[in-house]
Amino acid sequence: MTQSDTRFMRLALSLGRRGLGRCAPNPAVGCVIVRDGRIVGRGWTQPGGRPHAETVALAQAGAASRGATAYVTLEPCAHHGHTPPCAAALINAGIARVVIALGDPDPRVDGGGIAMLHAAGIVVDTGLCADEARADLAGFLSRVTRGRPMVTLKLASSFDGRIATASGDSQWITGAEARRHVHAMRATHDAVMIGAGTARADDPSLTVRGLGVEHQPIRVILSRHLDLPLDSQLARTARDIPVWICHGHRAAPELVSAWAGVGAEMIAVDDMQGALDPAAVLHALGDRGLTRVYCEGGGGLAASLLVAGLVDELVGYTAGVALGAEGRPSLAAMGLGRLAEAPRFDLVEARVIGGDILHRWRQRQR
Amino acid sequence: MTQSDTRFMRLALSLGRRGLGRCAPNPAVGCVIVRDGRIVGRGWTQPGGRPHAETVALAQAGAASRGATAYVTLEPCAHHGHTPPCAAALINAGIARVVIALGDPDPRVDGGGIAMLHAAGIVVDTGLCADEARADLAGFLSRVTRGRPMVTLKLASSFDGRIATASGDSQWITGAEARRHVHAMRATHDAVMIGAGTARADDPSLTVRGLGVEHQPIRVILSRHLDLPLDSQLARTARDIPVWICHGHRAAPELVSAWAGVGAEMIAVDDMQGALDPAAVLHALGDRGLTRVYCEGGGGLAASLLVAGLVDELVGYTAGVALGAEGRPSLAAMGLGRLAEAPRFDLVEARVIGGDILHRWRQRQR
Repeated sequence: MTQSDTRFMRLALSLGRRGLGRCAPNPAVGCVIVRDGRIVGRGWTQPGGRPHAETVALAQAGAASRGATAYVTLEPCAHHGHTPPCAAALINAGIARVVIALGDPDPRVDGGGIAMLHAAGIVVDTGLCADEARADLAGFLSRVTRGRPMVTLKLASSFDGRIATASGDSQWITGAEARRHVHAMRATHDAVMIGAGTARADDPSLTVRGLGVEHQPIRVILSRHLDLPLDSQLARTARDIPVWICHGHRAAPELVSAWAGVGAEMIAVDDMQGALDPAAVLHALGDRGLTRVYCEGGGGLAASLLVAGLVDELVGYTAGVALGAEGRPSLAAMGLGRLAEAPRFDLVEARVIGGDILHRWRQRQR
Repeated sequence: MTQSDTRFMRLALSLGRRGLGRCAPNPAVGCVIVRDGRIVGRGWTQPGGRPHAETVALAQAGAASRGATAYVTLEPCAHHGHTPPCAAALINAGIARVVIALGDPDPRVDGGGIAMLHAAGIVVDTGLCADEARADLAGFLSRVTRGRPMVTLKLASSFDGRIATASGDSQWITGAEARRHVHAMRATHDAVMIGAGTARADDPSLTVRGLGVEHQPIRVILSRHLDLPLDSQLARTARDIPVWICHGHRAAPELVSAWAGVGAEMIAVDDMQGALDPAAVLHALGDRGLTRVYCEGGGGLAASLLVAGLVDELVGYTAGVALGAEGRPSLAAMGLGRLAEAPRFDLVEARVIGGDILHRWRQRQR
């Protein structure tokens, strides 16, 4: 493959990322169609998951598709779902060559798209920018292969890992730019998830604000006993922006009804050691189609996800302020004995954001 | 001033930094001598503080000094100390122009060097790269103007601000590159300082290792009651590399004698609220000529320095590991009520070092 192949695939990847947080359970795919070195079509998975990236790009290219090369970040689908298979659409449009970053592990595709293209005499190249595609599509891949969404955990703290003073004063530890970045991160996830303690303490709305983004992620709250105020911002807005509440099987039925009554979707989940089982929660969310979940704490939920090995990506914001040991910790107790047992993450990026540091880490593969 | 003036001053600054940690109580000055656009002399304050940067650069330039421009990072001295004044040396060498980054606030100089040069008919330009010079010479300036060394506080921790598991397991949270950087930081300070708890727990040597550096910083230990093991690495090596112990006035005289007997310098310091007064400690160190102190914890000493506003620079190393709330905190309790009372720092730099993040912050001026 050539340098321009790589360049076009990178463009397809960047187009694909536009769909993140907006097309679950479908993958956020990007597609670029190139004829004689000129881009004739661009597409990405549209909000709600349809039309697919290839369909959009082919429509834009029109007759110019004939003899062209299509760059797609994920193997084109081979099955009739709500739409006819994209592999067929590429064939029908007269595409001569398809370059694919990553095969689709979805059992309904899983090589079937590539086979269809091959059978039609199309040249197929695979594996270009596969690592980037794997990172971009991590949520979709996680749901297909593990039955749960990927989890991004946010930790915004003081220099010494505190999220509030002992009295609960936390506004603001990080600066406006970091907080704006949090909103951008919310927008690229299907759902924002918090524990009940944070819901009670902060009465958050968990919406995306200040970015001109209209689409809002689902708000997921974990509350075993449903001890959440029914006059909270979440309750009051549940009819406008979805609120899903994961609760224990033994939550009081009248509370389940009350929350359902304000418009929340109620999800009963198994317990584990006196708390909701975080793996069960994520599988329930995966069953409902979520691929990317952004967890904003609190410390108890964050610690339980980390201990269970369920945090795929960490995003940290560190402010230049010291709060001391009586400040509230970003993570609750994790029950670790030795350092070797502690969950490790590999650094992806560290950079300045306003007056704070932004750092991103990915779960270390053992 | 011209672009080449700036270029030569930057070179002088980088030469000056070579002396950091090696020339206290003298400032680590750099000097470049330029004749007809060509560098004819370079110098920096030599180990032990003498000869001064100007003397070294003038000796290298020899007869080429006549009619040349000298770039000096600090105002040349005007007083006869161990060496004749550098201002006189520049005059005698026939220097035509002197460019100075920063005036020397030392009352024995304080404009006197510039006045001497002026009186001899030399063109004097001041203030070029003054901010950089102020940062490089912060330790010297702190001692002269505030009577205490500057303090750099190191905090190496997990993602959530922990320095060890509950059981004390801390080897290693950060990677080899970060630990190597710690040694380089030690080398640019006059002294490394820790609290007694860290001395007991880690039995550290606090030396610079693995960098081919021969000079070693002084090891300063704070121990109010001198409850430190006399068979520790510090005790055993005190005759080879200085160990200074700051203790309370009521420490047992036999322990003071025992530590003096192994070669430690004993410094009695006032108490404050049941601990050594950190300001009194730093003034005692300033009285003994220290200009740059690198504090490596523990959490109690770090917190007391922060609360007292005595930390000039923070250097953090953050590793991609989560230890949870029962891990040992990097900072002890600070007694802060509201967030507005918390000490704030401005970000100087954030970058990747090995698999960790290195971040440097400077105390925010209120």
